Amino acid sequence: MAYKAPVRDFSFILKDVLDIDRYSNVPGFADASFDLVQQILEEGAKFAEEVIAPINRAGDLNGCKLENGVVTGPPGWKEAFQAMVAAGWPALSTHPEYGGQGMPAVVSMAFGQMTAAASPAFSMYPGLTHGAYAGLHANASDEIKDKYLPKLATAEWGGTMNLTEPQCGTDLGLIRTKAVPQADGSYAISGQKIWISSGEHDFTDNIIHLVLARIEGAPQGVKGISLFVVPKVLVNDDGSLGQRNGVQCVGLEHKMGIHGNATCVMQYEDAKGWLVGEENAGLKAMFVMMNEARLGTGLQGLAIGTAAYQAAVDFARDRLQGRALTGPKNPNGPADPIIVHPDVRRMLLEAKAFVEGGQMFILYTALQADLQRSADEATRTKAQDYMGLLTPVVKGYLTDRGFHVASLGMQVHGGSGYTEHFTASQSLRDARITMIYEGTNGIQALDLVGRKLAAQGGRGVMTWFAELDAFVAENQATAGIKAYVDAVASTKAKLQEATMWLMQNGMQNPDNAGAASTDYLQLFGVTALTYMWALMAKAAQARIDAGDSDAFYANKLATGRYFLERIVPDADMHLTKLKTGADVLMAIPAEAF
Amino acid sequence: MAYKAPVRDFSFILKDVLDIDRYSNVPGFADASFDLVQQILEEGAKFAEEVIAPINRAGDLNGCKLENGVVTGPPGWKEAFQAMVAAGWPALSTHPEYGGQGMPAVVSMAFGQMTAAASPAFSMYPGLTHGAYAGLHANASDEIKDKYLPKLATAEWGGTMNLTEPQCGTDLGLIRTKAVPQADGSYAISGQKIWISSGEHDFTDNIIHLVLARIEGAPQGVKGISLFVVPKVLVNDDGSLGQRNGVQCVGLEHKMGIHGNATCVMQYEDAKGWLVGEENAGLKAMFVMMNEARLGTGLQGLAIGTAAYQAAVDFARDRLQGRALTGPKNPNGPADPIIVHPDVRRMLLEAKAFVEGGQMFILYTALQADLQRSADEATRTKAQDYMGLLTPVVKGYLTDRGFHVASLGMQVHGGSGYTEHFTASQSLRDARITMIYEGTNGIQALDLVGRKLAAQGGRGVMTWFAELDAFVAENQATAGIKAYVDAVASTKAKLQEATMWLMQNGMQNPDNAGAASTDYLQLFGVTALTYMWALMAKAAQARIDAGDSDAFYANKLATGRYFLERIVPDADMHLTKLKTGADVLMAIPAEAF
Repeated sequence: MAYKAPVRDFSFILKDVLDIDRYSNVPGFADASFDLVQQILEEGAKFAEEVIAPINRAGDLNGCKLENGVVTGPPGWKEAFQAMVAAGWPALSTHPEYGGQGMPAVVSMAFGQMTAAASPAFSMYPGLTHGAYAGLHANASDEIKDKYLPKLATAEWGGTMNLTEPQCGTDLGLIRTKAVPQADGSYAISGQKIWISSGEHDFTDNIIHLVLARIEGAPQGVKGISLFVVPKVLVNDDGSLGQRNGVQCVGLEHKMGIHGNATCVMQYEDAKGWLVGEENAGLKAMFVMMNEARLGTGLQGLAIGTAAYQAAVDFARDRLQGRALTGPKNPNGPADPIIVHPDVRRMLLEAKAFVEGGQMFILYTALQADLQRSADEATRTKAQDYMGLLTPVVKGYLTDRGFHVASLGMQVHGGSGYTEHFTASQSLRDARITMIYEGTNGIQALDLVGRKLAAQGGRGVMTWFAELDAFVAENQATAGIKAYVDAVASTKAKLQEATMWLMQNGMQNPDNAGAASTDYLQLFGVTALTYMWALMAKAAQARIDAGDSDAFYANKLATGRYFLERIVPDADMHLTKLKTGADVLMAIPAEAF
Repeated sequence: MAYKAPVRDFSFILKDVLDIDRYSNVPGFADASFDLVQQILEEGAKFAEEVIAPINRAGDLNGCKLENGVVTGPPGWKEAFQAMVAAGWPALSTHPEYGGQGMPAVVSMAFGQMTAAASPAFSMYPGLTHGAYAGLHANASDEIKDKYLPKLATAEWGGTMNLTEPQCGTDLGLIRTKAVPQADGSYAISGQKIWISSGEHDFTDNIIHLVLARIEGAPQGVKGISLFVVPKVLVNDDGSLGQRNGVQCVGLEHKMGIHGNATCVMQYEDAKGWLVGEENAGLKAMFVMMNEARLGTGLQGLAIGTAAYQAAVDFARDRLQGRALTGPKNPNGPADPIIVHPDVRRMLLEAKAFVEGGQMFILYTALQADLQRSADEATRTKAQDYMGLLTPVVKGYLTDRGFHVASLGMQVHGGSGYTEHFTASQSLRDARITMIYEGTNGIQALDLVGRKLAAQGGRGVMTWFAELDAFVAENQATAGIKAYVDAVASTKAKLQEATMWLMQNGMQNPDNAGAASTDYLQLFGVTALTYMWALMAKAAQARIDAGDSDAFYANKLATGRYFLERIVPDADMHLTKLKTGADVLMAIPAEAF
């Protein structure tokens, strides 16, 4: 029942579908031939399976402990974290100039899927550290970068992002944490931040907090928010650790899941902080972290689904109960394994089709992140547009479906899955947060319809439609994948119709955009995964046509067929629902609910 | 944030929609005028709100404790249970000859929704007791009835049902617990039963276990299973309590939710038991309990959804975050309450439309239970057919959607909902089991397509279609409800098409029936709730037309409109999916998952 990293799937995607070797002229790829990447993934799989997965359950059972401001992680977690740092995994995709290995995002997001599946709560410690690294790398002065990035790049130090306060989650304009300028150029930060993932722990000597606060006298609302770097332990000019700073963890949240990750209430009292980027431009600076965290959360939702799916398959192969409707398949046993039952297979295939489509969608999006550094302007522009457009879809659709898969995984287990003797409950409880944090999926949907569709006059979505149209046109005659090509054409047509509806009706009444947003995001997700499956089917069919007899390819096509037959019909349902508009939602007065 | 029993909804359903006063000639209804029922519901609401709801959280936080075979319930639970018995609530619908009040099922299932919403884990103690009562009432000899029913009727003693063993959940043919005939006519029962809800507790002096076991030498499989009554404490002929019997709780399950209910591993060692009904006819006898438990589980899923919905509404009205898309609605506050946002309202209305439709479906089904006792044969036959047909739909659809509603309720709360400071997590965790126990929803779907559709040559489903057709025909010209009537016609047509598809394709290959079963059950659920909404809309519109200005009726219609616009489109999606058949599910070999 142990997690098995799907290296074969990742290799197929990176080699046969995305063919990453053709990007050798893009920064990061020069030293990332497919053969090297394959080796990295195999080593990463071993690490995820042998070091991370075994500690996951202890995290759920024990959680974190807070005593006198000191947070202790679950048994074995500190050791696993330090083993991970020693092996260099957190530095996989950080910049060589800060001690990183500079691997492309396609590699780090394949490895990230393994660690997040092996232990979603554990993977958030390096995950947020990388977010803090990226936030500083994009926004901070060289002085700050030189001070913090080398240790963040390798996760010798941890990192966090501090946005939420009791009165403000989604609405960051309500932030009250204040920053008072000091004579030495630093700021004194005071206030309370809540829900700070990985906010305090005993894994590293220092933790670098990125904190949104309001400089005294700054404008109201989001235009008066600045970003600060606030180390847990002050760092001397020679890089050695100095005094403890005025920040501490004063509480841990009791949560439904991800118990192994310390979700902290952080109290800042005249903590020394330094401005990152411009005054009052903190929100924009923080968005570098937010966008990375959103992709990471989509990845996490999918990864939890992957582990839940694997556990369900293992259970369904082992559990003997009842007989196949078409006659015994295990006549010498007391009953057949439940995997013989069509409805059990429906649940497993629903999970498998989503998980494999989602894996592809993550890596397709990661490639866009890499292509933002292409020398070719058109490629760069397209990649940047796609990152904006696809990030809310990756976050919203993959987490929503990841939770769905975790729930299917529990259902396959029957009553066993509801007990804490199996992993199904932990997967379900862990998965649920991914729909909420880093911007609820409702916020993702609003971001998609309210901001991303309209960005650059709709250039991103138009490019996306053109890419799908081109795929359809090019593959009209490709043998063996007609059903996929047709499904791309039909889901794309529905998504385009929905987009037109939004343009016409959202302008007229913004509530229509809000009312349609979630169904639109779901429809976008179905369309995207249909396209992902078509790309995979084309590559698999090509291998079969070339005489490759590995059953992997035939199975890939059979799984994709489930997606076409049983998931693609969601597209029409979402289109019908979103076109009903806002009237029905706004008709009832608040007090009548 | 306290649970508020929806008495107004129940009154509307019982008076305006079902008009229960017209059944005064049906046994049970003679003493159940609507006015009396209304009083009962108001008192019941008070009890649920003031006695049961306040102990619910303690159940989740503390769970049950097992020490030396003694199970102690959560703080306050014993007192609440005994207060409930003292107030006579468990006796609401048991037979007057055994000390019950003989109220119809429509009354007890309205009250049951209140207790299950107030505390799902708590309500299982009287729930299973009632199941044991019903199982004995339907199957046992007068001697056994006289001994046990008076105390079970009032819940002075608890009751349980013992089916599952480690090697057999769904597949009861694998039962190994054995029963050895004794000279005194009793049996010595030995074996282990698992997942026994309410199996042991300190609320009552005795607990009466109904146990499936195999009499020595009985045939293999389900044809060799008999039902036994096994008291925890032996009962002397004078009704006083005698020696402790050879049964004890040897373990408690650690579960994701319903912590307040003791889920026991029960060890039987030469426990004295008495045969209930015929030898080897235990499964049929147990089905009286199973069917009641299935309806109770559907009710529980819905009820958890009701409480989750209410908590979400409270949160959405209070939480200030962001501004309405159409301009500030709370200009003097720092932000608007989140209930102004269309996507938040979508989640609340999705919950509300399901919850209110589900309440109606429960009571409509409960009325069929009552009409099984009608003097009129045609009424009786129809009611019996409906009970068979609708039970899996009530169980499967309402629990599936109840969990969905609980998840929506958490989503409305954002990050707060994921912490254990709010009730959203408990609702979600509690709701999840309802999709699993008393026959997983997959088993319900198989029961529906494999057994219930074909029963009596399809008479039940044909009667159901005829009822929907008649409603459509009668109300073609009814002012104000055209959209509802059209939706009944269209969902019914889809359900009929699916039924035809099953008849043609399920015969040909039973795997097609299995492959289509879950989508068929869902489609049936959507159709049933569409009809329920149409019945409610008709009654509400009639009140409006009669000049009743209570906003309740307009709100009812507005909520129903959400069901039509945003939930009815699920019907087409399920039809499309189910017609894809079994091929795609069976194509992949088990080892390729």
